[in-house]
Amino acid sequence: MLSYTLSREEKRPLYDQLYRLLRADIESGALSEGERLPGRRALSQQLGVSRVTVETAYQQLAAEGYVHARAGSGYYVDRIDVPLPCTTPPASFTPIETDAGYPVDFVKNAADEALFPFSVWARLTRAALIDHERALLAAVPSMGVPELREAIARLLYRMKGISCAPEQIVIGAGSEYLFNMLIQFLGRDRVIAVETPGYPLTARILQKNGMRLAPVPMDAHGVRMDALFESGARALVLSPSHHFPTGVVTSIGRRRELLRWAEETDSLIVENDYDSEFRFSGMPVPSLMSADTAGRVVYINTFSKSIAPSVRVGYMVLPPALAARYREEMGFYTCAAPALEQYVVERFLTLGYYDRHIARMKRACRARRDRVIALIRKSAFADRVTILEADAGLHFLLRVRTNESDAALKWALRRVGVRVACLSDYAYPGTTADAHVLVINYSNVDVDALEKSLPRVEQALLNGD
Amino acid sequence: MLSYTLSREEKRPLYDQLYRLLRADIESGALSEGERLPGRRALSQQLGVSRVTVETAYQQLAAEGYVHARAGSGYYVDRIDVPLPCTTPPASFTPIETDAGYPVDFVKNAADEALFPFSVWARLTRAALIDHERALLAAVPSMGVPELREAIARLLYRMKGISCAPEQIVIGAGSEYLFNMLIQFLGRDRVIAVETPGYPLTARILQKNGMRLAPVPMDAHGVRMDALFESGARALVLSPSHHFPTGVVTSIGRRRELLRWAEETDSLIVENDYDSEFRFSGMPVPSLMSADTAGRVVYINTFSKSIAPSVRVGYMVLPPALAARYREEMGFYTCAAPALEQYVVERFLTLGYYDRHIARMKRACRARRDRVIALIRKSAFADRVTILEADAGLHFLLRVRTNESDAALKWALRRVGVRVACLSDYAYPGTTADAHVLVINYSNVDVDALEKSLPRVEQALLNGD
Repeated sequence: MLSYTLSREEKRPLYDQLYRLLRADIESGALSEGERLPGRRALSQQLGVSRVTVETAYQQLAAEGYVHARAGSGYYVDRIDVPLPCTTPPASFTPIETDAGYPVDFVKNAADEALFPFSVWARLTRAALIDHERALLAAVPSMGVPELREAIARLLYRMKGISCAPEQIVIGAGSEYLFNMLIQFLGRDRVIAVETPGYPLTARILQKNGMRLAPVPMDAHGVRMDALFESGARALVLSPSHHFPTGVVTSIGRRRELLRWAEETDSLIVENDYDSEFRFSGMPVPSLMSADTAGRVVYINTFSKSIAPSVRVGYMVLPPALAARYREEMGFYTCAAPALEQYVVERFLTLGYYDRHIARMKRACRARRDRVIALIRKSAFADRVTILEADAGLHFLLRVRTNESDAALKWALRRVGVRVACLSDYAYPGTTADAHVLVINYSNVDVDALEKSLPRVEQALLNGD
Repeated sequence: MLSYTLSREEKRPLYDQLYRLLRADIESGALSEGERLPGRRALSQQLGVSRVTVETAYQQLAAEGYVHARAGSGYYVDRIDVPLPCTTPPASFTPIETDAGYPVDFVKNAADEALFPFSVWARLTRAALIDHERALLAAVPSMGVPELREAIARLLYRMKGISCAPEQIVIGAGSEYLFNMLIQFLGRDRVIAVETPGYPLTARILQKNGMRLAPVPMDAHGVRMDALFESGARALVLSPSHHFPTGVVTSIGRRRELLRWAEETDSLIVENDYDSEFRFSGMPVPSLMSADTAGRVVYINTFSKSIAPSVRVGYMVLPPALAARYREEMGFYTCAAPALEQYVVERFLTLGYYDRHIARMKRACRARRDRVIALIRKSAFADRVTILEADAGLHFLLRVRTNESDAALKWALRRVGVRVACLSDYAYPGTTADAHVLVINYSNVDVDALEKSLPRVEQALLNGD
């Protein structure tokens, strides 16, 4: 018979004390697999506690998988995999992804985390845990949670002029993931055109997925049509609302030409609309998809940029015919974005927090931009630089009159704590871009640090001559 | 001057009433972009409320992005993108993924959701929102949250005999996602062998990713070595701890042969260990990776199976040399699993809930299995069937003595509400598998429904002759 000492002086209730003593004996092997726990009556008499106390402790052990009940016969110890002693992991985990830690970083292209309405997010998360308990247990439908797809359909109509059914929308774990899915769906037998200069990550993802790329240069209206036709590409990825890094907004005329190209050559256009939310003024630019009547445009966007980088929810809108085929061919995949996060994003959109968050971020971006530009204008190098700016958000270009190479320019700035990239860094390998043009991502830059280091930046930029 | 009527009778505080009236006027355009809000003193006098009331309302509007303050000058209306009228989404969203809804479903291969400790999960989620606020705002490191990778390293040592550094672990949004990443990393120029019969999803993912597949048949010890050598494959995906659907556990001798094959042919083995947690008895089978001294085995597992299908967190362990290369070549990808979910899984593991959950699930599975087997043994068709069962979890095979085809067998059972697949359904296209063998996934089956329909099942199985 077991012999335990329980104490009424302790803060823990008696059943909890008994439960812990029994659990320890099961874990240590003192009570072994298959052994029957003492009868409730006998143990309660022996320990001088009520039978309910014993029963409660037994039920707790059963609930946690230490013992199981057999009808009319009592409780029996389950097999416990006795844990091996833990390995001691490396005392300090070496962070693999180091940030260079420049005081002034014009390369980092992420929203300012301080603007994220974390308490709202936490509240919506807690509410979703209560409201959607059953749904959170089940696997997510392959193309995403229906409520979120409906909310995105409304958002797209309101903000981008896209009129689509929720059935055309595919939710994924961010836009990188969605590009992977899209390529698997479309296959690898066509050449895909990318903009040069352009966003290098998109090209890398396409290449890692086994696509053959054709870089197509830009002019002031968007990608150049002659180069696009010559490339032989049968697909094109572009950002017509706001091209990175040039800032070019594809003109209406060029949009028409692009849609005609897609029809004539039986091609597909992938509209990567990752930062068009941050347009500062003027009417919102309608998306290219909204002008597409022939089912030739796939639209991709993500909330990682417009809500917070830790939110891994992106979406893709397929033309109706492609959406039906996608469901059939790709529906075997589980949706990679967890249900909880999808429900929270849905509430965030539907309750209006998204619009306010965008407004707040835009205001903060604009304030940062204004301060950065003011610092440049009053600097000693003001007459050596030209600000090239399109209307929309997050970055502008700075042309520097200098005889230095781009590499020398960047390194001179890095030595004084300023990290910056040049337009030429975004040229597709083997193509060129204008020299002496800095890409100024101001969305998350520490302007105070810039102000403080301005004298040294002036020296760095002027010393070259 | 604005003229609003505020009421002290209303439940809403005065500042809130004022805030709402102002907001409505901004949204309707009555207060337009750039317009200055009335001075606080003037408005408070006009409305007969305190200046604090006005200030609070203005600050709320500013916080939400409707207005902005200019130092010393007051508040100005910001540009609001006036929302278009919402589209009315389809009144009822047609669920795309329908479940056939058989009362007895032996195909569905998911853990029983009712066993998920949802209240624990919700509590850990709420705690993570408090503990990790800062970390939840930032982008997740490419290979995953360090704390979770440490917890997984400890789990693997304890449960699978794998001794690895957290730096070798890559977190992803489920194992399907990780297969995609792994193929992108390894490239598409080698033939990859898969087991036949085998898990069809794995083959589909590999094919969608542009891999050339070589199906390799099984014997009682695992994949057949002669066929593997003949296939010319330079990679192999297998589940040595518990093969689906045959249940074969790869023998120690065959494991040695496989590791030797990998070394001799410069090949890679991908160990898909998706359900080995559910082994019922005997010593845990050590993983193949734990026996690999040459850095030839990649280990993949997921918590979607062992915790809940809605948890989209999987992990992959790479040999040290490959891990370093992966970091370099694939580190540009953002981790697709959200930070919050990773922190919750980490707590779930570290606080011991995972072990208990597995124990509880195993017990429930065993109980279901015992009931299903008891029903079969007492049925009228008991002498027409043989139960083929390995030691581990979630399913067994049932060989039926019959002259019917597999198709006829399945349809006869479906007509009486029983959905079941045959071993032949899992044969790779162009290969064969034994006929008349049913695959009984009992992990989530409704045994009461089976008991109720047993007379009709008996008829269906016996009528054939």
